[in-house]
Amino acid sequence: MVYTGIKELFERGIMRRIAIIGIGSGNPQHLTVEGVATLQQADVVIAIDKGEEKHDLLELRKEILATHSPDVPLVTVLDPPRDRKPVDYQAEVQRWHQARAEVVERAVVENTPEDGTAAILVWGDPSLYDSTLRVIERFTTPVDVVVIPGITAVQALTAAHRIVLNRIGEEIVITTGRQLMDGARHRNCVVMLDGGAAWLTAYTPYTYMWWGAYLGTDKEVLRSGYAHDIGAEVAALKTRLRKEHGWIMDIYLLRELN
Amino acid sequence: MVYTGIKELFERGIMRRIAIIGIGSGNPQHLTVEGVATLQQADVVIAIDKGEEKHDLLELRKEILATHSPDVPLVTVLDPPRDRKPVDYQAEVQRWHQARAEVVERAVVENTPEDGTAAILVWGDPSLYDSTLRVIERFTTPVDVVVIPGITAVQALTAAHRIVLNRIGEEIVITTGRQLMDGARHRNCVVMLDGGAAWLTAYTPYTYMWWGAYLGTDKEVLRSGYAHDIGAEVAALKTRLRKEHGWIMDIYLLRELN
Ligand SMILES: C[S@@+](CC[C@H](N)C(=O)[O-])C[C@H]1O[C@@H](n2cnc3c(N)ncnc32)[C@H](O)[C@@H]1O
Ligand SMILES: C[S@@+](CC[C@H](N)C(=O)[O-])C[C@H]1O[C@@H](n2cnc3c(N)ncnc32)[C@H](O)[C@@H]1O
Repeated sequence: MVYTGIKELFERGIMRRIAIIGIGSGNPQHLTVEGVATLQQADVVIAIDKGEEKHDLLELRKEILATHSPDVPLVTVLDPPRDRKPVDYQAEVQRWHQARAEVVERAVVENTPEDGTAAILVWGDPSLYDSTLRVIERFTTPVDVVVIPGITAVQALTAAHRIVLNRIGEEIVITTGRQLMDGARHRNCVVMLDGGAAWLTAYTPYTYMWWGAYLGTDKEVLRSGYAHDIGAEVAALKTRLRKEHGWIMDIYLLRELN
Repeated sequence: MVYTGIKELFERGIMRRIAIIGIGSGNPQHLTVEGVATLQQADVVIAIDKGEEKHDLLELRKEILATHSPDVPLVTVLDPPRDRKPVDYQAEVQRWHQARAEVVERAVVENTPEDGTAAILVWGDPSLYDSTLRVIERFTTPVDVVVIPGITAVQALTAAHRIVLNRIGEEIVITTGRQLMDGARHRNCVVMLDGGAAWLTAYTPYTYMWWGAYLGTDKEVLRSGYAHDIGAEVAALKTRLRKEHGWIMDIYLLRELN
């Protein structure tokens, strides 16, 4: 459960290096200077293709590579299928991580020399609702891991709305649509991974919402207002946009203004 | 309280532009491609000097400017004095923001043409425990504001330790040392702005901590382990480091491993 770090592996001698690079969450310009440099020094870039719906996201990765590292080869790994409505949620996630670890490990080993570097591109930042670090912990080949932080969707949201996440001295919660549906309540919270419109189940007369979809891309849409004024309208908009583009990613901040 | 956005100001005609640029929280390479481009296009860079203790941080800003935008002039504004132990915390913060707004506004107006751009550099990301956006809301001169996100200290911490912020499907809390001292408890939380060693007041036998100071700088120090094993030692280390360098910035993740 606790990641033990890489130093002990290091002592085993020459090994492959994996750079997990956060590429930002939509705007290719959100890549950091360190991200650019790391990309350019990699022997291969590994990208995980999450299927049709996220096709636009894969295009974005390709745009980043074409701009910054046109000479580094790209290997695309097909994401193993996942049961989205499992009886046992935790167990299914475990199984799926194991399957993903095996295909990613194979791609790394087959495409990098023994002392080479594979770059794995991660949406947003590798620390936030992303499984790449957990996947790599399952590798049987020893690897040296380096994490290059990237701009999260949370920051893309606050930058687009020009807002501060916290009120003075207050705490911030980042949570999921599922937690909100299950009844979690906070005075100030960012919601991610909402497959529906969980905000409709979770507002008071004082709840203000700042919502953003496709942040940083040319499809970006922003809305803000009291949830009781705009909540239903944003839910309808989300349904319409998903139909129109074939996929959607959205995120929002809910704050009690009282 | 609710930031009204810039469009209505826009209609008033030509106005100054302010780019609030998140520069990352210690590593100059964490600046984004967008941050670099914005810096280079600015007429002036405004930096707020927070006094002796944060001198190293000002040096870091200078390093970023020397590398990416050596030709853009830097104007340093002295931060107005602040009462750190006020009777009324909220009121003192308000007063101090107003005083800061006035000096920053003057620096912007005096150093940019009427249709020019001033860049204000912000530590980490402008959305996280930073007052710059609130300061600019107080300007009396109409300005067009743009926010360029940057890598937060939270991401610098998780990248250095190669850890994920959340456990699968769980929520994340970001809070302050003060909140922790005041008794706030969470199963998974990042603590910032801890002037002391608030973790000592807030652990159970199952609390694991990942701690980092001076992240991204050449003084970076990392520690991780169960709080009951390493907590006191890290507190002593913090005291020693602060004495040695004259200042310290640290951040940590506390997680209940049960
Ligand atoms: C699996 S999580 C990955 C988060 C990512 N690691 C990060 O740092 O932002 C995916 C969720 O991030 C949010 N998200 C990512 N990119 C987004 C974008 N461009 N616009 C809106 N939301 C986005 C959505 O809430 C989506 O459900
Ligand atoms: C006023 S807040 C500003 C946070 C900043 N806006 C961000 O996005 O990270 C300052 C706090 O950030 C954390 N911090 C910032 N830089 C840091 C660094 N290089 N190492 C450790 N902690 C840091 C510390 O907890 C510090 O008390």
